[in-house]
Amino acid sequence: MSDPALLDALVEVESAWLTVLVDAGVAPAEAAEDLSGLVTSTDVPGLAREAEAGGNPVIGLVRLLRERVGTRSAAAGDWLHRGLTSQDAMDTALVLCLRDVADRVLEETRRQVSALSHLSDRHRGTVQVGRTLTQHAVPTTFGLTAAVWLGGVLDAAEDLALARARLTAQVGGAAGTLAALTELARVSGAADPARAARSMAAALADRLGLEPASPWHTARRPVTRTGDALVACLDAFGVIASDVALRGRPEIGELSEPAAEGRGGSSTMPQKRNPVLSVLVRSAAIAAPSLGATLHTAAATTVDERPDGAWQAEWPALHALGRSCATAASLTTELVEGLEVHEDRMRETASAAADGLLAERRSVRSLVDAPEPAGAPADDLTEYLGATDLLIDAARSRADDYLETIS
Amino acid sequence: MSDPALLDALVEVESAWLTVLVDAGVAPAEAAEDLSGLVTSTDVPGLAREAEAGGNPVIGLVRLLRERVGTRSAAAGDWLHRGLTSQDAMDTALVLCLRDVADRVLEETRRQVSALSHLSDRHRGTVQVGRTLTQHAVPTTFGLTAAVWLGGVLDAAEDLALARARLTAQVGGAAGTLAALTELARVSGAADPARAARSMAAALADRLGLEPASPWHTARRPVTRTGDALVACLDAFGVIASDVALRGRPEIGELSEPAAEGRGGSSTMPQKRNPVLSVLVRSAAIAAPSLGATLHTAAATTVDERPDGAWQAEWPALHALGRSCATAASLTTELVEGLEVHEDRMRETASAAADGLLAERRSVRSLVDAPEPAGAPADDLTEYLGATDLLIDAARSRADDYLETIS
Amino acid sequence: MSDPALLDALVEVESAWLTVLVDAGVAPAEAAEDLSGLVTSTDVPGLAREAEAGGNPVIGLVRLLRERVGTRSAAAGDWLHRGLTSQDAMDTALVLCLRDVADRVLEETRRQVSALSHLSDRHRGTVQVGRTLTQHAVPTTFGLTAAVWLGGVLDAAEDLALARARLTAQVGGAAGTLAALTELARVSGAADPARAARSMAAALADRLGLEPASPWHTARRPVTRTGDALVACLDAFGVIASDVALRGRPEIGELSEPAAEGRGGSSTMPQKRNPVLSVLVRSAAIAAPSLGATLHTAAATTVDERPDGAWQAEWPALHALGRSCATAASLTTELVEGLEVHEDRMRETASAAADGLLAERRSVRSLVDAPEPAGAPADDLTEYLGATDLLIDAARSRADDYLETIS
Amino acid sequence: MSDPALLDALVEVESAWLTVLVDAGVAPAEAAEDLSGLVTSTDVPGLAREAEAGGNPVIGLVRLLRERVGTRSAAAGDWLHRGLTSQDAMDTALVLCLRDVADRVLEETRRQVSALSHLSDRHRGTVQVGRTLTQHAVPTTFGLTAAVWLGGVLDAAEDLALARARLTAQVGGAAGTLAALTELARVSGAADPARAARSMAAALADRLGLEPASPWHTARRPVTRTGDALVACLDAFGVIASDVALRGRPEIGELSEPAAEGRGGSSTMPQKRNPVLSVLVRSAAIAAPSLGATLHTAAATTVDERPDGAWQAEWPALHALGRSCATAASLTTELVEGLEVHEDRMRETASAAADGLLAERRSVRSLVDAPEPAGAPADDLTEYLGATDLLIDAARSRADDYLETIS
Repeated sequence: MSDPALLDALVEVESAWLTVLVDAGVAPAEAAEDLSGLVTSTDVPGLAREAEAGGNPVIGLVRLLRERVGTRSAAAGDWLHRGLTSQDAMDTALVLCLRDVADRVLEETRRQVSALSHLSDRHRGTVQVGRTLTQHAVPTTFGLTAAVWLGGVLDAAEDLALARARLTAQVGGAAGTLAALTELARVSGAADPARAARSMAAALADRLGLEPASPWHTARRPVTRTGDALVACLDAFGVIASDVALRGRPEIGELSEPAAEGRGGSSTMPQKRNPVLSVLVRSAAIAAPSLGATLHTAAATTVDERPDGAWQAEWPALHALGRSCATAASLTTELVEGLEVHEDRMRETASAAADGLLAERRSVRSLVDAPEPAGAPADDLTEYLGATDLLIDAARSRADDYLETIS
Repeated sequence: MSDPALLDALVEVESAWLTVLVDAGVAPAEAAEDLSGLVTSTDVPGLAREAEAGGNPVIGLVRLLRERVGTRSAAAGDWLHRGLTSQDAMDTALVLCLRDVADRVLEETRRQVSALSHLSDRHRGTVQVGRTLTQHAVPTTFGLTAAVWLGGVLDAAEDLALARARLTAQVGGAAGTLAALTELARVSGAADPARAARSMAAALADRLGLEPASPWHTARRPVTRTGDALVACLDAFGVIASDVALRGRPEIGELSEPAAEGRGGSSTMPQKRNPVLSVLVRSAAIAAPSLGATLHTAAATTVDERPDGAWQAEWPALHALGRSCATAASLTTELVEGLEVHEDRMRETASAAADGLLAERRSVRSLVDAPEPAGAPADDLTEYLGATDLLIDAARSRADDYLETIS
Repeated sequence: MSDPALLDALVEVESAWLTVLVDAGVAPAEAAEDLSGLVTSTDVPGLAREAEAGGNPVIGLVRLLRERVGTRSAAAGDWLHRGLTSQDAMDTALVLCLRDVADRVLEETRRQVSALSHLSDRHRGTVQVGRTLTQHAVPTTFGLTAAVWLGGVLDAAEDLALARARLTAQVGGAAGTLAALTELARVSGAADPARAARSMAAALADRLGLEPASPWHTARRPVTRTGDALVACLDAFGVIASDVALRGRPEIGELSEPAAEGRGGSSTMPQKRNPVLSVLVRSAAIAAPSLGATLHTAAATTVDERPDGAWQAEWPALHALGRSCATAASLTTELVEGLEVHEDRMRETASAAADGLLAERRSVRSLVDAPEPAGAPADDLTEYLGATDLLIDAARSRADDYLETIS
Repeated sequence: MSDPALLDALVEVESAWLTVLVDAGVAPAEAAEDLSGLVTSTDVPGLAREAEAGGNPVIGLVRLLRERVGTRSAAAGDWLHRGLTSQDAMDTALVLCLRDVADRVLEETRRQVSALSHLSDRHRGTVQVGRTLTQHAVPTTFGLTAAVWLGGVLDAAEDLALARARLTAQVGGAAGTLAALTELARVSGAADPARAARSMAAALADRLGLEPASPWHTARRPVTRTGDALVACLDAFGVIASDVALRGRPEIGELSEPAAEGRGGSSTMPQKRNPVLSVLVRSAAIAAPSLGATLHTAAATTVDERPDGAWQAEWPALHALGRSCATAASLTTELVEGLEVHEDRMRETASAAADGLLAERRSVRSLVDAPEPAGAPADDLTEYLGATDLLIDAARSRADDYLETIS
């Protein structure tokens, strides 16, 4: 999700639209020009300036494309963008960018799900201290920790997949009535011009691999739903990163980030290895909720048939959220795939704290006057791991279902 | 969603849990006491003080319930809350409150969907100016306006219904391992204590009409998903309220709020009728995104097996968001059910602006050298309404499907 | 900052206003009734319902006050609220509540400044590990930690004091023109009615101990400035609480919260003492930024002479922020005044890490080919504490200046 | 505030620091190389990649600068960045960028203050409808509208100037103790090495025109204070833009944006002129509060001597907020300097509504049984303008003071 990517997406939309107009018999065959390559990233600064003057980047882009394609095909120049409004092109292009972000994030979560499922299985016997409100509580296993992370990633990934599947093209024309398009269908002889207009809208969606929809210029749930899901992904990544950063503290020492060339060096302290992946993921997770809030504020303050500032407020927030989520997803994959688990340290800390960790057990047994069980040593933490194994199984089974569904 | 409602929900959870313990053969039959009525709203201030000391309201409540039920049944006093941690009771109670909020909001949206579907049909011929970026653009109908509002409400209601259906009970014990519960099952002779523990967790969910789930102490998507959906509802309400407030300005005069006794009077100006419903709904919609963001920030900064501040930050935000959404939903229903539509004013404004509103049409026709159509007057706005009728049909059909699904 | 407190503030404003009207010769002497006690907290629910109907709580309150004072003095009933608009009363009452919150928070910060200044002095020789990005970096002292906390509290307290000093009364009348008040002055024979109206506005401010100001119905910086300062206070409290929670982890064990009856018990684990103060302060700090954002969103979307939802969105956010900041301030005072510092643990951890903590020093010395200093042992951390003492002195000196200024 | 600007600022800081080291006698004279021009915007992508690996952009930049300056002066290569930590360079560079943004915004607000003061004077007799909660209330003047806008801009500009004046350089070294710097001073023979280290920190601030300060790695009020002030500026701009957009609606028609080549054209409707300035300013104002909230969340979740994600979360928010505020400031200047005021339309609307607009006046007069004044016509709105003139005078006088202070 970058300025050049948005530009490419806008050009893809306008190209697809030319084809739709031609296929529908509205525009002449020679208008079906492929626009790709007509604008490049060197056009970005100029278009950005023009966007400020015009209020959105589409006006300048359409002018530029008309000039450039017009030398190849006058018809393409004439028909370009006809029937659309700026917001149609921009919303559909943003949706394409969002879909791309969602696909990249989902691919990363797929890898995370595999890695975490594996981790949770491998460490189902790795006893560690369970910590609540910062203090030692009862024993648990690192396998369950990984299973809980896994559940968080699955929750978010499922919602993102759902939001992605509901991304729709935007075709509404000036005020969401499809009037210009209906008029074009009428003058081209369509039997039912309004229906033909809706068909063209659906054809654009189909051509771009999106769902068709009634115009949603002022009903922004497709945007906020995807934004919410991206924030939820960052929440899940943030939990993992926060736990890794915390448990990687020297005093705890239970986890380390994967070592990698160039990662985590200090500008002054030669001995230091900083948990850079966790830090960067955490910083993205801290910033994300506000970006999601901006999308909702924009959605809530929308008025008229197309609004006067609310829509425009979406762009930078979506841009920042999309980039940030894609990057954090990739860093999180690197983190969980290469995570170093210091089992011995986990066990040592837990053993040293065994008395406190089993206090709840003693309290429970005294409630029912149960005698201390014979055989097992009184400080055997593995006797008080509850249903950790079943919970790991449940998370892994859910992961298997998920991986099967998406494959 | 209020302090007394939360208290009731907590008592409901603890009551249900006693029954679960008895049914599972873990606690003796005489422990199955109904706790309802043991604490009342007069206990709220004391519990609030204790909550500040203890960090959450459950500790004080359990103490109080033990004291009071203990005089009726010592077993109930002994067994109350056993196997649960504070967060189990609190999360499950919050989920019950959220479900109640969701149900109330969904009932309001059901009424809104009916009213808006009716409005959109009744006004499919009511021509009005379509406005974009505050300016007159092309003609549309008030029927389509209502249909677009309808689509926004449906988008949000569907997501809320989805989130509501996925609300789960929380049973994890101290660190999400179900250890105490497993131990209780073991000493009571369960063949597979861990499985028995999970069954008890599922039994609580079943008894409360919730979905069973693995512990989600640190995986907060059930909370953020519901929060996001409530914010999305407020976005949809906000759009309607903003449009009504705007179009109810004297200079526009196309819509009025329903007149009602005591609504909208001014403290100083006798002639004035303020659009109070819109104003209150708008104020709720403006404040909601930040509350949703807080839920995400809390979710993202969660650590350990149960966190050190992030969880606690959810409560006031959820409380405020739930109350606000339920109130705004009800005000929005009142608004759309009683909305006064000034058709004549709409038509007059549109007619006066006909020349500009049809400029796009002339531009479209000149593109294809189409002659002005014979017969219809040049300024007949009904000739340039595009697919408004079909779009209304589509929205109404979606509304019918929705109403049928939920009935 | 609570519903009853706001009610009291509203009554205080209306009482003061009656006196202003009488003093100015606009209302007859018998209108100067003291309204205190005429409404009580039992009126809150009824007024809340009426507020929903009328859009704000002032309309119902004025009606109630008129009824009740009217039996004592018909003139008071007649003159009550004359010349004011609802927003005048509400804004001024909110300002009084905000001032009260600010005073309470400033009193707490005063105590924190004293405690932290003392702590930083006492521990200027307490060597501890300096941690950056979670890893051990170079040595520091706990005295400097306290000094940095102190600096953060001073930054916030100074800004809050500044914002508090700039809180102004609101007197504008229906549309911020002082028209009704000017008219009242005119008919009562004032030589320069407009000037008399402004004088009455200033007299209200004076009577309430506030600054006079031109009407600020739509220029909300007094609200956002105070809100920003309260959030900044919570930021500073949050840093302290986060550090205490972190360093109070068993594996680090450098700090403990003050032990207090009823604080920090677990509902299931008898051995556990939770850092409840830190947890509650952190939860308030996590939620605050969003509340501050709501105040800004409201400020930014204000229109007309008095807005249509933006103003109303301020109330719950201000209410939540004020309460939360006052509570967190008091908890933070308790935390820093009773903080347990485990010096030995700090020194032990630092000593054990000495080699790494001095790596930077070796790197610096090798840069200039400086030989290892003779005399001091190679692992003497006190030789590499840089300017910690001077920095503590600077912070304490700033604290002294602050305490002197406010006393 | 852009990536190249940040890069330039970082180089400026490192250059200044070399000079400080040389001036203090710590580094040899030949280390005082000017680094400007050694890195260019073509280095940005590579540094961005390296920043992701290292966690911040300084590490890569220092490496690059060492390589490149080293060919000119080995001493400069050796001494570059010595005594600083990455956060020192980055924070100080961000402060320089923030100062630049503040200066640009303050220059724009200066022009706005002039323009608005002039507008308010010119239109002190231009009667218009005063609108509250969207409805006609009492008469006012456009001069007062402009005066209220002016007050809002002054409130924000004063706070921004204050925040700008308190921007400080950051010099703390690895953990905020100035240890490396003190060590360098010691080996270079300083009599009081710690004091020499603090002097060097102060010298950097002096050289960059900033205030000296104790290290503020974890006390982020300089950042949040400036962020809050930038958001407050955007609030003030948002109010103006919202009012202009609203009053520029065809049905109201009281204001128009300045016409300018290329501004506000529609991609489909030839007749339409969109209020692009207002729309863009509004969109910036809608998005700003969340960015400010992110700065506070980062400030509140800071831990240790330098934090693990919170600091890093500041950058994109600051970047977006800085750019957005500078752009919106300039657009707002263009808007207010060229604003078209349609006085006749204002007067016509007010006259037509005179009866309602004077209802409050009749109510006031009937309270005191004052007869209708003789001479003036009953519907003369200029008789009910209250203190508008005095309020305009007050705002203009404040503007004069401000302009004098800053000149």
